[in-house]
Amino acid sequence: MVTAAQVKELREKTGAGMMDCKKALLESNGDLEKAMEILREKGLAAAAKRAGRVTGEGIIDSYIHAGGKIGVLVEVNCETDFVARNQQFKEFAHNIAMQIAATNPSYVSIEEVPEEVVAREREILRQQALNEGKPEKIVDKIVDGRLAKFYQEVCLLEQAYIRDQDRTVKDLLAEQIATIGENISIRRFVRFVLGEES
Amino acid sequence: MVTAAQVKELREKTGAGMMDCKKALLESNGDLEKAMEILREKGLAAAAKRAGRVTGEGIIDSYIHAGGKIGVLVEVNCETDFVARNQQFKEFAHNIAMQIAATNPSYVSIEEVPEEVVAREREILRQQALNEGKPEKIVDKIVDGRLAKFYQEVCLLEQAYIRDQDRTVKDLLAEQIATIGENISIRRFVRFVLGEES
Repeated sequence: MVTAAQVKELREKTGAGMMDCKKALLESNGDLEKAMEILREKGLAAAAKRAGRVTGEGIIDSYIHAGGKIGVLVEVNCETDFVARNQQFKEFAHNIAMQIAATNPSYVSIEEVPEEVVAREREILRQQALNEGKPEKIVDKIVDGRLAKFYQEVCLLEQAYIRDQDRTVKDLLAEQIATIGENISIRRFVRFVLGEES
Repeated sequence: MVTAAQVKELREKTGAGMMDCKKALLESNGDLEKAMEILREKGLAAAAKRAGRVTGEGIIDSYIHAGGKIGVLVEVNCETDFVARNQQFKEFAHNIAMQIAATNPSYVSIEEVPEEVVAREREILRQQALNEGKPEKIVDKIVDGRLAKFYQEVCLLEQAYIRDQDRTVKDLLAEQIATIGENISIRRFVRFVLGEES
């Protein structure tokens, strides 16, 4: 028997796909260390290493929602033109475009959030906590927790994946890197809503 | 006999479609004033009036070119949701997205070009003309002419329409306003090229 918690742990440690982790754990009779070795042997645990490599190829994809009321344009990069034409890669890019249409993130990653935005958010959260009567000495901790929630809303990679709410988009990305075998990055996106202020 | 020049003049005066202008001129035996009346009676000459009306509806459309190497997202507005679902309107929006993919404009209209961009361009063109040995007194005129060329490159509405180089995108827009019977505006667009600096 392999538990969901074991699969989750293995995925977090290796970046490999869920099914691959499950298989490896079945093969190792639930031994985490051995499952990691199995994945490494199969070349499925290399996501972390791959994440540093240059991604100069890729695809521009779009998704139009609700009969033209919402539109998304996204650039997803990979290392080779070969992967750019791969069906799984294309599907990943399209799922990302759909995610953006549905959840309206403001940034790709936490690193992209401007410092002044973080500072302003921190100040708002701090005032909130104080207004709620939280003691001064735990306010910073509360602010940190709420800031993490803020990132989960505005950063694409931190969001829950719309087609599998138990995983984040970052998890999905790590899985794609592991199974496709190339570094992949979501470079940029833009989202238009009909008639919105821009 | 109706000449192309007559059709052109009538189109410029009324904003009506080319075929409508031709028909009206045939009906009026080439009399421009009478042709304008005919168009007005048919409700095809109202583009100028319509151009002031609020466009709160419309469509977001996209166009992906060259297997995902170039992508465009565009918002085209009209007055009613009824027109937003009209096939001709949708085709117009899609042609605009294709135009942007092909010609890479920087702005929708001349009005959108920032003053500092115009000032810098003017200065460059002025120096160019002087370096070419043009006399100081005609330099301003030369700069004006070259600035018009600059606008024809960077402003979508001033560009030659890729599917009919004798017309500008502005002509095409006026024709759509006249034949569809609602004010239409190209609100905004974004164009991604794979791997470009952004």
